[in-house]
Amino acid sequence: MSQTHWEEFYATHLPPTDFEDNRSLLKEFCDRHNKIKSNVVLVTSGGTTVPLEHNTVRFVDNFSAGTRGSASAEYFLDHGYAVIFMHRLKSLEPFTRHFTGQQFLDMLELHESGPSTTITVDPDSVDVLAPILQKYKNARESQMILYISFTSVVDYMWLLRAACECLATFEQRALLYLAAAVSDFYIPSDKMPTHKMQSGQGAPVISLQLVPKMLAPLASLWVPHAFVVSFKLETDESLLITKSRDSLNKYKHKLVIANILQTRKHRVVFVTPTTSYELHLTREQALAGLEIEEPIVADVVRKHEEFINSATRQ
Amino acid sequence: MSQTHWEEFYATHLPPTDFEDNRSLLKEFCDRHNKIKSNVVLVTSGGTTVPLEHNTVRFVDNFSAGTRGSASAEYFLDHGYAVIFMHRLKSLEPFTRHFTGQQFLDMLELHESGPSTTITVDPDSVDVLAPILQKYKNARESQMILYISFTSVVDYMWLLRAACECLATFEQRALLYLAAAVSDFYIPSDKMPTHKMQSGQGAPVISLQLVPKMLAPLASLWVPHAFVVSFKLETDESLLITKSRDSLNKYKHKLVIANILQTRKHRVVFVTPTTSYELHLTREQALAGLEIEEPIVADVVRKHEEFINSATRQ
Repeated sequence: MSQTHWEEFYATHLPPTDFEDNRSLLKEFCDRHNKIKSNVVLVTSGGTTVPLEHNTVRFVDNFSAGTRGSASAEYFLDHGYAVIFMHRLKSLEPFTRHFTGQQFLDMLELHESGPSTTITVDPDSVDVLAPILQKYKNARESQMILYISFTSVVDYMWLLRAACECLATFEQRALLYLAAAVSDFYIPSDKMPTHKMQSGQGAPVISLQLVPKMLAPLASLWVPHAFVVSFKLETDESLLITKSRDSLNKYKHKLVIANILQTRKHRVVFVTPTTSYELHLTREQALAGLEIEEPIVADVVRKHEEFINSATRQ
Repeated sequence: MSQTHWEEFYATHLPPTDFEDNRSLLKEFCDRHNKIKSNVVLVTSGGTTVPLEHNTVRFVDNFSAGTRGSASAEYFLDHGYAVIFMHRLKSLEPFTRHFTGQQFLDMLELHESGPSTTITVDPDSVDVLAPILQKYKNARESQMILYISFTSVVDYMWLLRAACECLATFEQRALLYLAAAVSDFYIPSDKMPTHKMQSGQGAPVISLQLVPKMLAPLASLWVPHAFVVSFKLETDESLLITKSRDSLNKYKHKLVIANILQTRKHRVVFVTPTTSYELHLTREQALAGLEIEEPIVADVVRKHEEFINSATRQ
């Protein structure tokens, strides 16, 4: 399959079983927010899997806990955006990301008094938990966030296109913040064994094929008026700017946020068609608990507003 | 590397960076429980990763949420065992597994009254949460459980051997319940690229090698007196019993718990050197919320007790 044949990808890979449910949810969410003229952001987050068998026991995965996407979603809500949070199942989610594993149970106190038992959050934890809980409840009650989840790269591709179909009507007011770590490679459905590979048959060789670059139809056909931001993660600093610039030239979108695996929590590079500049946390900011997603989102929102304004002026 | 050369695996792959810390924790935990003559179980849980690059962006993973291991650990605690819960980082853990994602925040109620804010668990959720919270706090306070985590198959192998070194002194009182989904394949350190594979260079071919079967040195050398239980997950029913029997013949351990991917939540087969029998939940039991790990662990504990008794009588 050549890289440009994205249509063939959809023609030869079935949508996930819950696809129609998710499409309805997306449509309802977008219709409602388009009516009230909200700005909307699609945040994609977490890694995609590439199954190695139809009855999937083994898969190739991309490193991504979903930190960037889940934190950014919170800041977009702060800026008044309606947020479609399209994430890898069980990756980090906005709000809950602050309390992983046992932290949650450790905050709780059991009080047994006679027949009635109550459970409270210990006073020391209330300070941290209360503002997050309040924001979580506000976002849910005002229906400003929609959670959609994927697992495999095929699921992701189907949901991405379905979301774009709904976002197109927002024109310039739609922001796409494509932070998910999507596999570049996959095993086509017809090349995949049915059952678990057997170790008795010797060491297997896995032949991967290139996933078509969906940024091409996305930016030019699906949401041609939207503000599209893609991410680039590298481990080799020397490739970072060149590859980001190549991507902008090829897909004609607005912004690449580039980062290096090892330093991604305190440094990113914003690459636009005409400029590139670094955004980083100082040591003091990092120690004070500031997350780099806060200034990243603030900068993206500012750029998106300029983009909307310049489109309106024309 | 031939399958028997497990020593070469350790000689050519470095231990994880936090290895010595974990070894100290294991030693302290085992020394304490050996002194008071506890029975001890090592529960391994979750899948292992096989990194495809040294600066890991991509990896092969095994399907496993850690349900079997995390549920079983709770039941072993109920039976009075000291539990080493050796699990894949971020897979399910005992107790917290009951409350995933937003469930936790949805249970909480914010009360703001004047300057002081309190947070309580809503009364409807207290019934479910209170007994689990109580057990969690008991296990922690009585130091009956030790949490150790791994990510890659190499981490797992180092920790497994370290745990066995500590468990050997328990002789028959040590139970190994090897429920982790450990990769059969890996990419040796010297065959791995340093940086992220580039999609511009075409579709990659991943050549995997067989991981040495650690059950061999484990059962015969590391903990020769322990009661060792391994698990077998297949997607093809026809291979299940044969492969379990092969494993018992080869490694001379006590029990294989065999299961099929699609039915593993309500049916397993216990395969011993001389018998095999099914253990399953009825539809009524499943609907009533019984977990199959409860009868599995009860049966394993019964077998382990018989094993200890017969060793004592000799």
